[in-house]
This record gives sequence, C-alpha cells and structure tokens, in this order.
Amino acid sequence: MTSLDALKWRYATKKFDSNSLITQQKISIVKEAFNLTPTSYGLQPIKMLVIQDKALQAKLREASFNQAQVSTCSHLLVFCIEEKIDKDFILKNFERIKEIRNTPDETLAPFREFLVKDFSKKDDIEIKAWAKNQAYLALGNVLTVCAYEKIDACPMEGFVIEKYDEILNLKKQNLSSCLVLPIGYRAEDDQFAEFKKVRRPLEEVIVEV
Amino acid sequence: MTSLDALKWRYATKKFDSNSLITQQKISIVKEAFNLTPTSYGLQPIKMLVIQDKALQAKLREASFNQAQVSTCSHLLVFCIEEKIDKDFILKNFERIKEIRNTPDETLAPFREFLVKDFSKKDDIEIKAWAKNQAYLALGNVLTVCAYEKIDACPMEGFVIEKYDEILNLKKQNLSSCLVLPIGYRAEDDQFAEFKKVRRPLEEVIVEV
Repeated sequence: MTSLDALKWRYATKKFDSNSLITQQKISIVKEAFNLTPTSYGLQPIKMLVIQDKALQAKLREASFNQAQVSTCSHLLVFCIEEKIDKDFILKNFERIKEIRNTPDETLAPFREFLVKDFSKKDDIEIKAWAKNQAYLALGNVLTVCAYEKIDACPMEGFVIEKYDEILNLKKQNLSSCLVLPIGYRAEDDQFAEFKKVRRPLEEVIVEV
Repeated sequence: MTSLDALKWRYATKKFDSNSLITQQKISIVKEAFNLTPTSYGLQPIKMLVIQDKALQAKLREASFNQAQVSTCSHLLVFCIEEKIDKDFILKNFERIKEIRNTPDETLAPFREFLVKDFSKKDDIEIKAWAKNQAYLALGNVLTVCAYEKIDACPMEGFVIEKYDEILNLKKQNLSSCLVLPIGYRAEDDQFAEFKKVRRPLEEVIVEV
C-alpha cells in the first residue's frame, strides 16, 4: 500500500466490529511506534495506556459523551502527559543517553545544564502545553502507523479529562489524560467508511515559496 | 520496509547532502500527506510552506540559531497556524462538506451552530493553542510518511517565530510559523546516522490496563 493509499483508507471510525480483535503482534507494533515518536529535546513527556477491559471501557464511554467507539473498539489507547517534568526527570534522560550511547559526561553537560535551567524558568501551564504538543505529535505518528498496518482508529479530543484521570487513577502516577484513540476494525456496515474525505483544496493549504 | 524499520531508520538529520534533491513526485506525496492529516472538528487550522530558495533559506537559517540543516536541506517545510479562526472560517468548512458530500443543510446545521458558538466563547490564546496542537499532529503524520518514503527530516522547534513570520511575510496571510521541518537526504558522512536511538524503556512508557 502506498503512503497516500494508507492515508486515504483511514477515517475516524465510529463503528467498530467488536468481535474483531487486534493481534498481540500488531499491538506490539503500535506500542513500539508510540515509543519511537521523536519528542522535543528527546524528553518523552508522554505515556500511553493500552486498555482492554470492557467494564472499564464502559465507564470511560460515559466520560466520553457516551461515544460508542470507546467501548466497542478492540483496544482503547489513552495518550497521557507527565505531570512532573522536574530536574530529576531531565537528569534521568541524560543518564539514559550516557548508558545507551556511552557518551562522556563532559559532552552532555552543557546541554543538560541548559535544559535544567530552561525548564526551571517555565511555569506549570507552559510545561503542560509543551507536553501536550508532544502527545499530539505521537498521535500523528501512531495514527499513520495504524493506517499502514490497516488498523482502524478514531482520534478523540471529546472526553472529560478530569473523569478519565479519576477513573484511571492517573494523578497517582503523575499523569493526566490528553487524547483518546480507540483502535480496532471497522464494522462492515459502517456508512462513514464510504464517505468522501473533506479537505481544503491542496493549493489553499500548501504555499510554495 | 516494515513500520518499525521505517521509524528506526529515521533520525533528526542535521547534515544533509545538499546535492541530493527530493523529486517533485515525492514532494507531491509529502504535500498531500500533510493535507490528509485529520484535524480537530475537521477544521484544518494549518498550512504548510514548501521552500526551495537558497537565499531565503540562508536568512531563515540566521533566524534558526544558525542551524545548518535549514539551508542545506533539499526542501524546507514550515508548518503554520491560521491566525484568524472566525465564524467565516468555520462556515467555509461546512460549505465544503456540503459540496463534497452533498450533505443536506439540515443535517449539518446543529453541529455548525455548536461549533460557531463554541469558538465564539474561546479567546485568542486558547484558539492558538488548539491550532498549534493540530500542527504537531500534522508533523507527526508527515514525519512518519517521510520515514516510509525514505526521506530524511529534522523536526525543529528551535527558531525565532517572530523572525520567520517577518521574513516570510506571514502576518499578511493570517499565518504564524509554528514548526520547521528541513527534508532531504542525509550526508554519507553524517555520524549521527549511526547513533543508537535513545528512548525510555517500553515498559515504563506503556501502561497496560
């Protein structure tokens, strides 16, 4: 499948075939793809929950304006941001670089010190907005990988963050929910699958300079 | 190439082979892929500049802390957000749906009215943050498509927005620069190509529920 065929094949799937489950092998690809998303400064201020628990999904559906795809999908992905991006979080990242790449400490020190100082100047709102941007970047990556893998998905902003955080006990893990992505396989009779894609004309959206 | 091979192959390319140009056919794929990004409410509050002008790239490089990849890449992509998301912008989107899908007006009216009202309640800062999220989503999509297409890329937040907006005359087009993505082909001697990827351990980033 070409890249454009994959992107044209996908659509926001609202009606899943709840009997068609994604295999563990495919779920592994989705998980690894999430973790391979490049992020700002390489800090990865995000985590992904992989939920396959019908009772829990029913509760989350209530917290998602009763949208059916939350409970009828094969797996429910919840993209979360880290709530505690502090000095320790940043230092841990540099320890990881040292370990994986064997980089000498003196090579890493200037960038490490810059980052620690830079983040100490940012307030909580700014850091959260920055982390949220990275969650959207990861969503873009995961959505496209799903399209290539012929996994259907429905990217969602429409849910109550506070309720998700409570139901999933996220605060205790220093997380906050940010985006929801039910994945699975479209129902055979989903009329939306046949709808023409609506996009602004290419010449309006792309500016050649 | 499998999805994970593609994502492992890519890296933030800092040293491009400035003699290797991306073909028009491949650039077309990147442009269309950008436009196929799903966005919040389908509103597409984003545009992408495709720059291939060495003199201009030299100026933009100065506005990017002198990072070489801005001028040595084959094409420089600048992801912009729309500065004017008003009633007209929203209505135009619904006209497009009507035209493309032949949807009756009465079917569209409730959602259209909800959106117009909803956006009229948001302030400028909120709308810009929302649009910026969509730009990151598009970046995630385009980056992954580039990886599958074996196009190298370097996602960048490190540039001076005000300077880009001025150099590219963006205000007059109701745009503001948001993200920069030099694309092209890695230089043969780019040492970064061989660096091991640094990522948090999968079991730390993925939470099974």
